[in-house]
Amino acid sequence: MTAPVSLPIWLNGRILPAGGAYVNTADRGFLLGDGVFETMRVAGGQVWHFDRHMNRLAQGAAAIMLPPPDRIVITAAIAALLDACGLETGSLRLTCTRGVGPRGLLPPGQVTPTLLLTAASGLPPATPVRLVTASHRRDADSILSRIKSLNYLPSILARMEAAARGADDAVLLNHAGFVAETSASTLVACLDGQLVTPPLSDGALPGTARGVLVDAGIVREGRISPALLGTAEAAFTLNSLSVREAVAWDGVAFPRRSDLLATLQAGCQG
Amino acid sequence: MTAPVSLPIWLNGRILPAGGAYVNTADRGFLLGDGVFETMRVAGGQVWHFDRHMNRLAQGAAAIMLPPPDRIVITAAIAALLDACGLETGSLRLTCTRGVGPRGLLPPGQVTPTLLLTAASGLPPATPVRLVTASHRRDADSILSRIKSLNYLPSILARMEAAARGADDAVLLNHAGFVAETSASTLVACLDGQLVTPPLSDGALPGTARGVLVDAGIVREGRISPALLGTAEAAFTLNSLSVREAVAWDGVAFPRRSDLLATLQAGCQG
Repeated sequence: MTAPVSLPIWLNGRILPAGGAYVNTADRGFLLGDGVFETMRVAGGQVWHFDRHMNRLAQGAAAIMLPPPDRIVITAAIAALLDACGLETGSLRLTCTRGVGPRGLLPPGQVTPTLLLTAASGLPPATPVRLVTASHRRDADSILSRIKSLNYLPSILARMEAAARGADDAVLLNHAGFVAETSASTLVACLDGQLVTPPLSDGALPGTARGVLVDAGIVREGRISPALLGTAEAAFTLNSLSVREAVAWDGVAFPRRSDLLATLQAGCQG
Repeated sequence: MTAPVSLPIWLNGRILPAGGAYVNTADRGFLLGDGVFETMRVAGGQVWHFDRHMNRLAQGAAAIMLPPPDRIVITAAIAALLDACGLETGSLRLTCTRGVGPRGLLPPGQVTPTLLLTAASGLPPATPVRLVTASHRRDADSILSRIKSLNYLPSILARMEAAARGADDAVLLNHAGFVAETSASTLVACLDGQLVTPPLSDGALPGTARGVLVDAGIVREGRISPALLGTAEAAFTLNSLSVREAVAWDGVAFPRRSDLLATLQAGCQG
């Protein structure tokens, strides 16, 4: 958990003071979870992997038939907000909803999306994580498993369950019983000396850091059963903001490999 | 689709003018779909099946570990809003989110839920519906299939798909291939002279009107395969606001049975 939001906010083209940004209660993001988002890392005042984030956002928007946000607008929003916040190191979250609509499920004929950009200084702690297996399964067949949508209750419930069981995060299995990911991170296991992460077809979100590492050949995709995970020579959770060592999972203690942690951390920079 | 919201709004204890209600952009309902809701029918200035709606809301809140809203507060809110709107016939939507939180998935230690109550005059048209089968499946094993949460993208996508294919609504099948429900309604088929609706275990939302009809013995629960649905002597979609005849589904034309329509409409009143 990073610090609470206490920085200026960019909303639909305007910079607003901390805590002073509001959306209409008729916004479909609020009423129906009708939108997508991205969380991006900022270092040295620059956004890591901006193009990858914009590509994924566009794919997610297309999947829910939402017009993709204009990259020029977003680029300008990011510049304005980083400047207003004086942010050098931290994160940005870009939220794009289908905006205000009438009652009912069908969007209005003319959609005016709501675009929100928020910043947080600093990064979540990259301390080691203890994992448990979530009691709920991830639906690998759902289109929602492949996009970063506002329908985040399954991840919230998994994280709350982990906390209630004294752990830091939860491993989500799919209905076939294979590892998909954790509540908000890619899971990477070292198996037979190779860094392996579940394929998208098993319900892994196409994470940006994951994509960087797979494309660089640092991590390969491979199906991971719980039995196989139990044999891992090391395990990690990673997302756009951090790479963390997984030190325990249910009853299993994973060996720690600081060399692999360093490899993944360096690899995420791309 | 009913008329756009143009009536006063009740938000966290206050009556606000139409279009003048806003929530903080840090609300977890907006950022993560972290909440539940109810849609209730108003007739003669009274809410139909208030206790059933409150029970389902409490069950949904419990499922996502959210403190259930206080019925006394909600009762007072409904009275105040119906009075402010002068509403006799129409609907109410009660939305309850986990409120404002810090960044991250874990809720704050002290949750202050956001409660929103909106009204709409009139009811959606109860005209006959043409159905198609949605290309995405409903995850009957998910806890989200049993509660009315703000994670509504699967239903939105099904409804948009139906519209794109020239239909009014979409039938959702579960992963086993059985009928679950439609995008926002219970499906009822007349099979061998009996009114049958899919069981909750097949992914049907425990709809309030559905519950009234099942408890009254008017509709019984039974598994419905697409092949069986193709033999239906009539079919209907229903929710808290209306009962509608289904006249077509993919290539099949259903016979129309105005007697059964009347039975269901009368039965929903309880």
